Amino acid sequence: MSTVPCTLCKRRDAVFMRPYSGEKLCVRCFTRSIEDKVRVTIAKYEMFKPTDKIMVAVSGGKDSVTLLHILAKIEKAFPKASLCAVTVDEGIKGYRDEALKFAASNCRKLGVNHAVTSFKELYGYSLDEIVKMTLEKEENGKGLTPCAYCGVLRRRALNLAAREAGVDKLATAHNLDDEAQTMLLNILHGDALRIARVKPVLADVYPKFVQRVKPMCKVLEKEIALYAYLKRIKVQSVPCPYAQTALRSDIRVMLNRIEEKHTGTKFTLIKSLERIRPALEAVAEEAKLRDCRQCGEPTVSEICKPCQMLRKLDIR
Amino acid sequence: MSTVPCTLCKRRDAVFMRPYSGEKLCVRCFTRSIEDKVRVTIAKYEMFKPTDKIMVAVSGGKDSVTLLHILAKIEKAFPKASLCAVTVDEGIKGYRDEALKFAASNCRKLGVNHAVTSFKELYGYSLDEIVKMTLEKEENGKGLTPCAYCGVLRRRALNLAAREAGVDKLATAHNLDDEAQTMLLNILHGDALRIARVKPVLADVYPKFVQRVKPMCKVLEKEIALYAYLKRIKVQSVPCPYAQTALRSDIRVMLNRIEEKHTGTKFTLIKSLERIRPALEAVAEEAKLRDCRQCGEPTVSEICKPCQMLRKLDIR
Repeated sequence: MSTVPCTLCKRRDAVFMRPYSGEKLCVRCFTRSIEDKVRVTIAKYEMFKPTDKIMVAVSGGKDSVTLLHILAKIEKAFPKASLCAVTVDEGIKGYRDEALKFAASNCRKLGVNHAVTSFKELYGYSLDEIVKMTLEKEENGKGLTPCAYCGVLRRRALNLAAREAGVDKLATAHNLDDEAQTMLLNILHGDALRIARVKPVLADVYPKFVQRVKPMCKVLEKEIALYAYLKRIKVQSVPCPYAQTALRSDIRVMLNRIEEKHTGTKFTLIKSLERIRPALEAVAEEAKLRDCRQCGEPTVSEICKPCQMLRKLDIR
Repeated sequence: MSTVPCTLCKRRDAVFMRPYSGEKLCVRCFTRSIEDKVRVTIAKYEMFKPTDKIMVAVSGGKDSVTLLHILAKIEKAFPKASLCAVTVDEGIKGYRDEALKFAASNCRKLGVNHAVTSFKELYGYSLDEIVKMTLEKEENGKGLTPCAYCGVLRRRALNLAAREAGVDKLATAHNLDDEAQTMLLNILHGDALRIARVKPVLADVYPKFVQRVKPMCKVLEKEIALYAYLKRIKVQSVPCPYAQTALRSDIRVMLNRIEEKHTGTKFTLIKSLERIRPALEAVAEEAKLRDCRQCGEPTVSEICKPCQMLRKLDIR
């Protein structure tokens, strides 16, 4: 097989052709380009201070484990910053239990403190149990999807863990595909105004709310997967058994199909909607945080979403 | 085969199940529901006055011919209103020439005056010729798509024809699918602010600009097709040979797939984006119309889009 030299270093053999730029990259220039992209994103959105205690939400999948590796690398240059990790065990049999092992082993390898929290311990029930309860309770197909419960309860679990650990920032591994999907999902769910909340830094100023940042939000999912593969990072690769039921996975498939035929569509989508974000923020109700009347956790309504959900299930 | 009675009249046999409402409808109740939807849309957006001269843009396809039939029916109740039709012959061999015959025969049948205008006569070249010129001129794939040329030049042709006929309104047959696709297309093209311009009535007040209305913008494409079929309306059914090259047809396929699995998605998409339209209109540059410095036709920039395109092709 004939080889092509890397467009950047011109010395090593290229292993990857970047469709949207035409660059042909060797292993080293490619992996460096991903790390650089993360560095630039962190700088551009002023995600971290040099003294920040940072917690990374690590599920054990390729995105979050890769983020942990890249942040661990970047953090070396900031001796006053510190890194730790948390995994939320939602309780999804045959999926999360496996992923937890990958999360733990990567943390061990990188010497990063690793906390684990679980739905069972926080809410009394695992996601599997909650899904079972919703199926019994609600008329067929009329209730919330497993992903709706999981998203709300996981975000709460992460905020609790971050606050408990006393960190300054909570870093999540959302990639460019996630962000593009979420924006479309908001539109297709009838809630286009929520696009205003899909952004690299969620910095609501409220004592009980730990600021959330997404250092990989400008990196394509495909390139993160390639990074993890080339760096031989060990990750859980089984998809969540509930993911198939969600509108999100249909949007994912469709965006991938369109991207394949029209290179750069995902970037354009994000830029396009970023451009209208200021207009949306101007009219979106000011999301003033306050304490939930029931549990005391930060919320924009009287009763927080997790409490509302748990109430519906007669858990709370 | 066992039959099911119509949900509405409870007498006749149902021929159609409306997925998003669960209604089972007979031929008469279904076709009436479509006509009613058009009536309600016209009323809601105050599309017509009882004395309006209305021109319908009729391509010869199912949507525009159906619109002509429905408006002809509605118009009977408004003796001071009048209806005429125009077809733009873009010059697409094996496609538009066929469609023209259907447009003409339906107009004859309904006793509606029918004007024909063409790219060749207005711009000196047919779309086929323009496409050939762009292929020769531009580097592969870097130029505008045939649809981009066609859209801009067709809108201009329609405005000229409507003004020449001295009508008050130009009615186009955009359906709900078209509108949903256009909104997504704007987003995926990086121009989300243009969503502000996708609406039932385009009523820029400018002497040279004929107001445009879309009486079928709340009707699903599928239901228009069924209406045409049940009413035995004769239409061109071959798709445009250039359509396949466009991002729009990928969006179309994908929206149809999602709608099939998640009934009502198209409605939700439209409602969702309608909700943010006011915010977008507030920040969108005020589209102040003025005369193009070159051709004198209404435009928002110094040189209008058709002139810019024709210049690029060295036609003007």
